[in-house]
Amino acid sequence: MSDRDFHPEDPIAALATPWGQSALAVIRVSGPSSLALLAALFVPSGGGSLERAGGHTLMHGWLCEPAAAGAAVSDRVRIDEVLIAVFREPRSFTGENSAEISTHGSPVIIRRVLETLHGAGFRPAGPGEFTLRAFLNGKLDLTQAEAVNELVRARTDRARALALNRLSGSIETSIRAVKEGLLDLLAALEVRIDYPEEELAGPAVEEGQLALRQAELEGLLGTYRIGKVFQEGVSVVLAGATNSGKSTLFNRLLREERAMVSEIHGTTRDYLEASVGLEGIPVRLYDTAGYRRAQDELEREGIRRTDDIVRNAQIVLYLVDASRGSLPEDREFLGQESLRTIPVWSKADLGAAACPEGFVAVSARTGAGIEELTGRIADGVLAGLGSVETDGPVIDSLRQKQLLERALAALGELRRGVAEEQPFDLLAVDLKEALDALGEITGEVSSQEILNTVFSRFCVGK
Amino acid sequence: MSDRDFHPEDPIAALATPWGQSALAVIRVSGPSSLALLAALFVPSGGGSLERAGGHTLMHGWLCEPAAAGAAVSDRVRIDEVLIAVFREPRSFTGENSAEISTHGSPVIIRRVLETLHGAGFRPAGPGEFTLRAFLNGKLDLTQAEAVNELVRARTDRARALALNRLSGSIETSIRAVKEGLLDLLAALEVRIDYPEEELAGPAVEEGQLALRQAELEGLLGTYRIGKVFQEGVSVVLAGATNSGKSTLFNRLLREERAMVSEIHGTTRDYLEASVGLEGIPVRLYDTAGYRRAQDELEREGIRRTDDIVRNAQIVLYLVDASRGSLPEDREFLGQESLRTIPVWSKADLGAAACPEGFVAVSARTGAGIEELTGRIADGVLAGLGSVETDGPVIDSLRQKQLLERALAALGELRRGVAEEQPFDLLAVDLKEALDALGEITGEVSSQEILNTVFSRFCVGK
Repeated sequence: MSDRDFHPEDPIAALATPWGQSALAVIRVSGPSSLALLAALFVPSGGGSLERAGGHTLMHGWLCEPAAAGAAVSDRVRIDEVLIAVFREPRSFTGENSAEISTHGSPVIIRRVLETLHGAGFRPAGPGEFTLRAFLNGKLDLTQAEAVNELVRARTDRARALALNRLSGSIETSIRAVKEGLLDLLAALEVRIDYPEEELAGPAVEEGQLALRQAELEGLLGTYRIGKVFQEGVSVVLAGATNSGKSTLFNRLLREERAMVSEIHGTTRDYLEASVGLEGIPVRLYDTAGYRRAQDELEREGIRRTDDIVRNAQIVLYLVDASRGSLPEDREFLGQESLRTIPVWSKADLGAAACPEGFVAVSARTGAGIEELTGRIADGVLAGLGSVETDGPVIDSLRQKQLLERALAALGELRRGVAEEQPFDLLAVDLKEALDALGEITGEVSSQEILNTVFSRFCVGK
Repeated sequence: MSDRDFHPEDPIAALATPWGQSALAVIRVSGPSSLALLAALFVPSGGGSLERAGGHTLMHGWLCEPAAAGAAVSDRVRIDEVLIAVFREPRSFTGENSAEISTHGSPVIIRRVLETLHGAGFRPAGPGEFTLRAFLNGKLDLTQAEAVNELVRARTDRARALALNRLSGSIETSIRAVKEGLLDLLAALEVRIDYPEEELAGPAVEEGQLALRQAELEGLLGTYRIGKVFQEGVSVVLAGATNSGKSTLFNRLLREERAMVSEIHGTTRDYLEASVGLEGIPVRLYDTAGYRRAQDELEREGIRRTDDIVRNAQIVLYLVDASRGSLPEDREFLGQESLRTIPVWSKADLGAAACPEGFVAVSARTGAGIEELTGRIADGVLAGLGSVETDGPVIDSLRQKQLLERALAALGELRRGVAEEQPFDLLAVDLKEALDALGEITGEVSSQEILNTVFSRFCVGK
């Protein structure tokens, strides 16, 4: 989509559900002429006409090949029995006339329907093109458009809730409040620029107001790290001596939290990897080769890989076998390691000795201590991220983060300019730069390049 | 579903689209109380009420957790922004009140919505349970219900067209015509049973009529082999000496016909396997190890496997390298082999010698001869199946085939009874047996056991 040029008049079509065999598939079409084009391919079972159908109604019938000239309805070549949801502009997702075609969920049918639509004048939609149109037609601001994609990609329920909050427009609301404050400051400056002869009371830039606006933007910027954790997730690695119970705990964590995706047993890698949600945080969980027992080249290679994984992990669960007690290599590892290491007293049901201070006692067999452990993992991930209990928006988009930084840099310049008693017109430049950056966040100020970057990350059909 | 006991009153829910990340997911609910239960979880964006919404309308809004007692709408916990398609009995797929909920296509959202529905009183639907309800409510006969599943599972466009024909009720129409004929015969017999003293003119069983009905059923039965080929497909194997061009032709056939699914390179198997549609026939295509050059144990094992695949294939493409000419082992294979072997003069662009009689000259490199080859494959598969250009129904269900055989066996008994001048009441038993078998095909006569068998093969959500 890098060379996408926007043709909002084009009728577009795309599969909106995953490719595969299932009960239903949904194919979306949009564009001012979309209903007229679709009507030529549709024979309603109950009579009536798709072209005259009201918005937000459903029609049952047959999707057909285009009619040959003068052919009777009974001669039409039927592709599938379908249900068509009709939307009239502006009351649709895209803001245009559009429709959703429910077909039987067979890949053969999906392909045939798409081919027929393309033959009839629909163009295959690019990634995110439906949402792009919603944005261009003013149905969503740019942060809401991004939230649509973040919602689809959410990997835990907490990430879903954060994206849903953004979809409801919470970022735009926050940004608008800041912008209104900055516009007040700009107005005060411009009066002084336009009427230099007037002796106006008070400072040209209200520093208290400026500080408030900076604090609001910094608060929003600070949520980025939280958003990133919940959307992108973290990696958590199980390490420890061989036979310290890593694999049993790995399986227990997956089972307890109902693993979301398949476990991959690498044939060429000597570790296991799986995705799981722990306390709402998407976690990539690694089970590694037993630590520190290198004998042959193959085993040393396994340990080199373990080292790599451990180095890159956000959290390391280091297991010590309670039935065996801590070994010299355990003490060496735990002595070096940092805050991101959680020492685990594993097989606690078998151990005679008391659980050492700072360790989490866990029995993967009985499940004892698992809840405490997942709590410690979540605490470790969130430590230093600030409160995550905010009701306000939590940003997740790198684009938004960078624009917030640009706005804050401009406000920093403004503050410096005020201190240096720079001319009012220079101060106004900084304020306008901050307002521009904020306008880009919501899409008020946008270029084709920006939009291409934002929407190219979407899936087709969205 | 083996112990399914039908509770058509239960509200049921299931995901109807494939599990995965996409623009949209559709969750289906059905049952007399389904709209009332769903309404308690739904806050429409435009006001109004889901419970009072008309059939075939769409409502936009928020799917929410159930409201706490006395909670305001603004306090509701939102799960997703959704679009709900409302259907009122009897104008719905199931014939009951039902709805289709379009959510954002995230697995996290799908799981959360299903959990919320289950918490609110919906039961997870079993495989085919929506279609079962459509059958129980008289929306479909049993052959149409089976066609729904056959349509979803169709692997080529031709298989789709055949299933769509069945979905429109073509089998039921054919069966009904035969049954009406048989009922006339039964009426004639029963008059003679009830009024033995009357001297009625003509034979008790019109043999001409009986023969016509038998011929009609045999015609329908004969389509089963066609249906099976188009629905289940056939296996086609590429064999020949090493370096005879098998893999190049394999890739060419896949590319030409746009392979439908992934190519599996077996790490423990020494052959390649892929799915492709050739002339509308779903084909499982095998590329095998080079033939007849066994040297070590591993190679001999490869050839044993090739032998197995060749033995079980419907069609064998035996390649002879045109640039090398036919080898003794080629002549040995082709001498033994049967009608299902198609000799291929491969690398024809490199060969100096003329293509031998009966061979198909092919160049996988230039594409020459590929079309003729796929035509020969299709001819080979369809040889002896009878005409496939019928506009009538083509059956694909083993159940239907077996019931047609049962009906035909009963009519055979009837004919024997007539010849032996058996008493009328014995003849009537045979006729009733035939009618019963036909009634089971369309589901007029059905038991829970039959229905369990039919619907257990469906996917959930259908």
